[in-house]
Amino acid sequence: MSSIFEGFLSTPEMMGAFDARALVEAMLRFEAALARAQSACGLIPDEAAQSIIGTCKVGLFDVARIVRDSAFAGSLALPLVKGLKETVGLFNPQAVPYVHFGCTSQDAIDSAMAMVSRDALALIQADVQVILDALLVLADTHAETPMLARTLMQPASVTSFGLKCVGWAAPLARSRERLRTAAPRALQLQLGGTVGTLAPMGDHGETLVRLMSEDLGLTRPMACWHTQRDEWVALGCELGLLAGSLGKIARDVVLMSQFEVGELAEPYETGRGGPSHMPHKHNPVASMVAIAAAQRAPQRVAALLAAMPQEHERALGAWQAELAEWPLLMMAVHGSARAMAGAIPQLRIDARRMRSNLDAMRASLEPPAADEWFDPALARRAARLAGAQVVDLRATV
Amino acid sequence: MSSIFEGFLSTPEMMGAFDARALVEAMLRFEAALARAQSACGLIPDEAAQSIIGTCKVGLFDVARIVRDSAFAGSLALPLVKGLKETVGLFNPQAVPYVHFGCTSQDAIDSAMAMVSRDALALIQADVQVILDALLVLADTHAETPMLARTLMQPASVTSFGLKCVGWAAPLARSRERLRTAAPRALQLQLGGTVGTLAPMGDHGETLVRLMSEDLGLTRPMACWHTQRDEWVALGCELGLLAGSLGKIARDVVLMSQFEVGELAEPYETGRGGPSHMPHKHNPVASMVAIAAAQRAPQRVAALLAAMPQEHERALGAWQAELAEWPLLMMAVHGSARAMAGAIPQLRIDARRMRSNLDAMRASLEPPAADEWFDPALARRAARLAGAQVVDLRATV
Amino acid sequence: MSSIFEGFLSTPEMMGAFDARALVEAMLRFEAALARAQSACGLIPDEAAQSIIGTCKVGLFDVARIVRDSAFAGSLALPLVKGLKETVGLFNPQAVPYVHFGCTSQDAIDSAMAMVSRDALALIQADVQVILDALLVLADTHAETPMLARTLMQPASVTSFGLKCVGWAAPLARSRERLRTAAPRALQLQLGGTVGTLAPMGDHGETLVRLMSEDLGLTRPMACWHTQRDEWVALGCELGLLAGSLGKIARDVVLMSQFEVGELAEPYETGRGGPSHMPHKHNPVASMVAIAAAQRAPQRVAALLAAMPQEHERALGAWQAELAEWPLLMMAVHGSARAMAGAIPQLRIDARRMRSNLDAMRASLEPPAADEWFDPALARRAARLAGAQVVDLRATV
Amino acid sequence: MSSIFEGFLSTPEMMGAFDARALVEAMLRFEAALARAQSACGLIPDEAAQSIIGTCKVGLFDVARIVRDSAFAGSLALPLVKGLKETVGLFNPQAVPYVHFGCTSQDAIDSAMAMVSRDALALIQADVQVILDALLVLADTHAETPMLARTLMQPASVTSFGLKCVGWAAPLARSRERLRTAAPRALQLQLGGTVGTLAPMGDHGETLVRLMSEDLGLTRPMACWHTQRDEWVALGCELGLLAGSLGKIARDVVLMSQFEVGELAEPYETGRGGPSHMPHKHNPVASMVAIAAAQRAPQRVAALLAAMPQEHERALGAWQAELAEWPLLMMAVHGSARAMAGAIPQLRIDARRMRSNLDAMRASLEPPAADEWFDPALARRAARLAGAQVVDLRATV
Repeated sequence: MSSIFEGFLSTPEMMGAFDARALVEAMLRFEAALARAQSACGLIPDEAAQSIIGTCKVGLFDVARIVRDSAFAGSLALPLVKGLKETVGLFNPQAVPYVHFGCTSQDAIDSAMAMVSRDALALIQADVQVILDALLVLADTHAETPMLARTLMQPASVTSFGLKCVGWAAPLARSRERLRTAAPRALQLQLGGTVGTLAPMGDHGETLVRLMSEDLGLTRPMACWHTQRDEWVALGCELGLLAGSLGKIARDVVLMSQFEVGELAEPYETGRGGPSHMPHKHNPVASMVAIAAAQRAPQRVAALLAAMPQEHERALGAWQAELAEWPLLMMAVHGSARAMAGAIPQLRIDARRMRSNLDAMRASLEPPAADEWFDPALARRAARLAGAQVVDLRATV
Repeated sequence: MSSIFEGFLSTPEMMGAFDARALVEAMLRFEAALARAQSACGLIPDEAAQSIIGTCKVGLFDVARIVRDSAFAGSLALPLVKGLKETVGLFNPQAVPYVHFGCTSQDAIDSAMAMVSRDALALIQADVQVILDALLVLADTHAETPMLARTLMQPASVTSFGLKCVGWAAPLARSRERLRTAAPRALQLQLGGTVGTLAPMGDHGETLVRLMSEDLGLTRPMACWHTQRDEWVALGCELGLLAGSLGKIARDVVLMSQFEVGELAEPYETGRGGPSHMPHKHNPVASMVAIAAAQRAPQRVAALLAAMPQEHERALGAWQAELAEWPLLMMAVHGSARAMAGAIPQLRIDARRMRSNLDAMRASLEPPAADEWFDPALARRAARLAGAQVVDLRATV
Repeated sequence: MSSIFEGFLSTPEMMGAFDARALVEAMLRFEAALARAQSACGLIPDEAAQSIIGTCKVGLFDVARIVRDSAFAGSLALPLVKGLKETVGLFNPQAVPYVHFGCTSQDAIDSAMAMVSRDALALIQADVQVILDALLVLADTHAETPMLARTLMQPASVTSFGLKCVGWAAPLARSRERLRTAAPRALQLQLGGTVGTLAPMGDHGETLVRLMSEDLGLTRPMACWHTQRDEWVALGCELGLLAGSLGKIARDVVLMSQFEVGELAEPYETGRGGPSHMPHKHNPVASMVAIAAAQRAPQRVAALLAAMPQEHERALGAWQAELAEWPLLMMAVHGSARAMAGAIPQLRIDARRMRSNLDAMRASLEPPAADEWFDPALARRAARLAGAQVVDLRATV
Repeated sequence: MSSIFEGFLSTPEMMGAFDARALVEAMLRFEAALARAQSACGLIPDEAAQSIIGTCKVGLFDVARIVRDSAFAGSLALPLVKGLKETVGLFNPQAVPYVHFGCTSQDAIDSAMAMVSRDALALIQADVQVILDALLVLADTHAETPMLARTLMQPASVTSFGLKCVGWAAPLARSRERLRTAAPRALQLQLGGTVGTLAPMGDHGETLVRLMSEDLGLTRPMACWHTQRDEWVALGCELGLLAGSLGKIARDVVLMSQFEVGELAEPYETGRGGPSHMPHKHNPVASMVAIAAAQRAPQRVAALLAAMPQEHERALGAWQAELAEWPLLMMAVHGSARAMAGAIPQLRIDARRMRSNLDAMRASLEPPAADEWFDPALARRAARLAGAQVVDLRATV
């Protein structure tokens, strides 16, 4: 399975964040941090730790083979740990028993997932910020630009394009804030040992957790979360919400970009979004990506939630399903954020067309209704609301 | 559609919280608060306001007819507002134009949904607290009770039943905390007027929002959220997470309650969960309800998320779909919380069986493996972790 | 939980088909058929059978109380069987042990669900036929009516409105056909006894199944399907597909009904779809209902599929979840079919506007592209395809 | 995105069936078949067709670059067609305008998806057959082997392991049959040209469709199905049903394989499913894969269904989302089928343990209930039902 089906719906950076090499590298960082902390506690000999730490370099491993072997083993971590033991054994056979000491596969994998997800989130947040900044500029510029307000897909009255832009922006600002709360809760070290009791760590469990969390830049967990997935899945929910909010923007952009409406257009690049022999086609491909993400992300979130009732001390099937759904959610959301970050700052806005659509509606009505509901001056009311919100949104950085 | 299919999966209280009468009553509270605030601002005459407020009593309305008429109207609020105007007109014809003045159906419905959902959440939170308290007591009592720890549905090593109980409790404590953040963000007044500009309110929009929020005990929104559903759906996600965490408890309880395992049993009441002619059947019906909720809630959340890309100033189809999914999610989650609140405090725990299962596993192995992995003394490690977490969890009330 | 949230998204008929009375009545029909067949086989005394059959009348039962008691019992059938025994006992105490003889709750409930679902399907199929007939008429009438063909939400070339109508019709004709295959497979008698072995029936199991299937008009199953739900859920999938095909029509209708496009309009009735003080609003409420259904049905199908791994001889939670999701799926789909059956035959079609939109596109382009892609004569190609398909579709009745 | 997250949940063959090379190769087969048919009709010169056909060899293309470029283009087919034109132009510049003549990207992609899905289905069907055959053998062998029948996760009465096996087998036999109906309906040629009218093909549209369908071994469609996805998604639903039926088997196997139950065990291979330092762990990893698939497939189906309301003549976002979900569904289902095909034929069955669990239950009850419900002789009833079904199932090959 290459990226052919996801490639144009996600981004190379995000696919890189979750590729085999990145995950193996993160697992090796976990193993090195474990050895470092265990030697600091005196749980394993310093020399063994040095051998292990020195071997935890992704360049020393055949990543493709680890991936291949994981299919047979039924786990990503088993072949990695096996390979690490073999490689450590080449240099220092005495160190082999101390590799991955007292740990379970899930400790390494969940911690590695938290590390690569941290990088993935940074990508998403950066693009959300670009969209948010651009929308606030548009909200200022078009604060008073009158346009049709539409409810149930029919003209209802007048709003301003600026207020529309604020309405697109505010959920992104809130997502930014909620992600800042949810991310550190989710991006935790995982360290429980075989069954969550950290039994082989003697009295050093708490110290190990503290040292490793600091070393890896992950949150120090209250307890191991092998089968308590709420904080992890809560972050997934936030990503689903973000996909929904971006999807709302894209839906509106597409509707306003229809030929017959003509109020907006995505920036156009030759060779993107349409065949060269149809020069009249300016397909809104950024919105296409965001809409596809908004259709897929809810099902991903459902899969994560459905996998929450994980049996006993480690689940059979549910954890593995969650693991595979997670990067797909991240990929869809970043595809969406990146696409809109490309489109929104360069959106082509046709204020005259907004006005002429409004005038056409007005002209189709008898005067009382036309004046009551479609007076362009109503945009000024919208402008006041838009202005106040822009101030509020700028205040929350 | 009666409650026959949901009745044994939810609770009468929750079905009452979302029944037609409760919703109509909440919409009438909204209309009364609107009139009160508008007269305070001088937007409508005091006498008209008094007539409207005095008429906003659910007893004056034929709720069944409003429900019936809503099917034709395609909206819950249209027949209510029509009925309110007619009833106000009987007493004070001059007041009729001031009924629902400057508002849109969605203002009344979303605000009413926020009001009834506040009551609904209180029900859920009360039952979660009961479960949480009971689990912490069990965690203390059984801190050192050894039992098999099971991973991938096979015995792996030893834990304590107390640690298991803490593992069930911690996600509930976190849900409690996250709900406290998410609820006030979601339970907002909705007031935007026809297209979100509050145009008919003149300069009084902000004041109206403040007065009505205070009057109805709802959060004062930054802006109207007709098609910005992120905070509302974020609350829905929290409910989905709670269903998942409760489902994990139920799944474990059921597995431990199997005849061949015999470590737990739900409290048993005659006539509940099994036919009278099969006295040997003690079906774990509380867990059944929680498992059913954990299977249904993820799809509800997916529906809410999928409905987020709402067009323009009011969506066609998506908002209506969201509206109908919402109470079903609440109902499922309360069914689960209530069922577990009934079962957990009276759980029948067989510590001897926990021990004999452990001993049987031990006996099936050669001594080295038996001692390394299945020494009952390992439960003491679990007890220390359990104790520390109980202290932490008790500290967050 | 009244119908307030589902009322305007479904139909009174469908809500009636699945209301408590209908389900209790169907369960009583099952119990009567069971007694009749068992007395024919000599398994129970004729007199007992007569007493039971005579008592299986819904009017003799307090349906509301059965619903209430089912919440405590954790099953719909337990209170019904209890009530039936009590009522039979009033007239003929000797017959009591023969009530529900050798059966399990699921036998009665699944069979009753199959009976009410048969009625429900007939409602859906009738409305689908109305839509299909109307679309084929439109396809004939507008076979050559040129209009813009739109891809990725931008004009691409020319098609005819007739071909568009055929494209809407063909999936409905295929749904009709697939439902005819799927329905009899799904609408089966359920009869397995406590654990699917029909043990208490002695050698009469096969005969009972035959007699009862004929009596109740249900398909004779190959075996009991207590935890083999594939044929049942396959019917649910068909309903999901139908919701999707109807949603596609609705989506197109809404897009073509936008003010700026103006090619179509749903028929308009005063008081439906918009407030009386906004006479300019002709909201496409039929399409709204179909779109809401198309957003909700996929999650319902997912819930049914997710509930398929049902444990052992009767599932804990999964079956109960499936049971509750089923009527919601039916209700959504019939809401959609009924709404579109109301709208499509009276669709207001503006062929001149179709043409003027095409001309406007044409005018926006340089001649070569305008002629290559937007020559109205291209509609004749579409007309030929449309005509051939109409013939094919009319041939499959 | 490498296969690291899907690798152990799917199979190399299935990942190969949907990798970039396979899809590009299938698209090239489409382009060659198009040129062949168009030259046969006289639509394009024979020499041009020969050049195109000769160039449609995957070895001539840089597949990785096509994938990369598709991300920018927003389509899989645009860079392929561009590359094909360039390569054809190297040998025969006159042929370039005849490449992909009159076609649209979706024609090539949907047809290619149908081709690779045909191969993918064959993989799935072969493994389902293995499971089915093995289950029928087990059903014979263990027709009379008594075991506990369990409902709501508690012992209810007695069944036979043979009847359990038949209950696992029958849904697979039905899936096989339904797939045979659904597959040819779904695996159709796609050929509509830009907007579904086949306009550039003159009078040859019908002939082209016939020739190309035969050439590519795809079903001849009644019409193009650019935005009529019901038959395609119907096949997806079938795959979801199969995942559910396999998940039911896996769920039962896992429950019966618990240490305390001990009635079954998956075949065990060293290095598979557990770490080498825990020799007591025989994790049921085949069932794990099937359970993970049964949790993920429903969400995939929901995504396909949710994407059905595709706008106008080509959807924006919905088609692209469907395209990306499809291989993930196939991959999950084949992972499940392959895993169970590996496990079921070599299942380790402990009939004595089945009997001792039954005896233990019996011993726990007072004689009347013990004899009524737990007489091992009841297995003979089950055996009769099992035998009859095996005969029926063997009759449908």
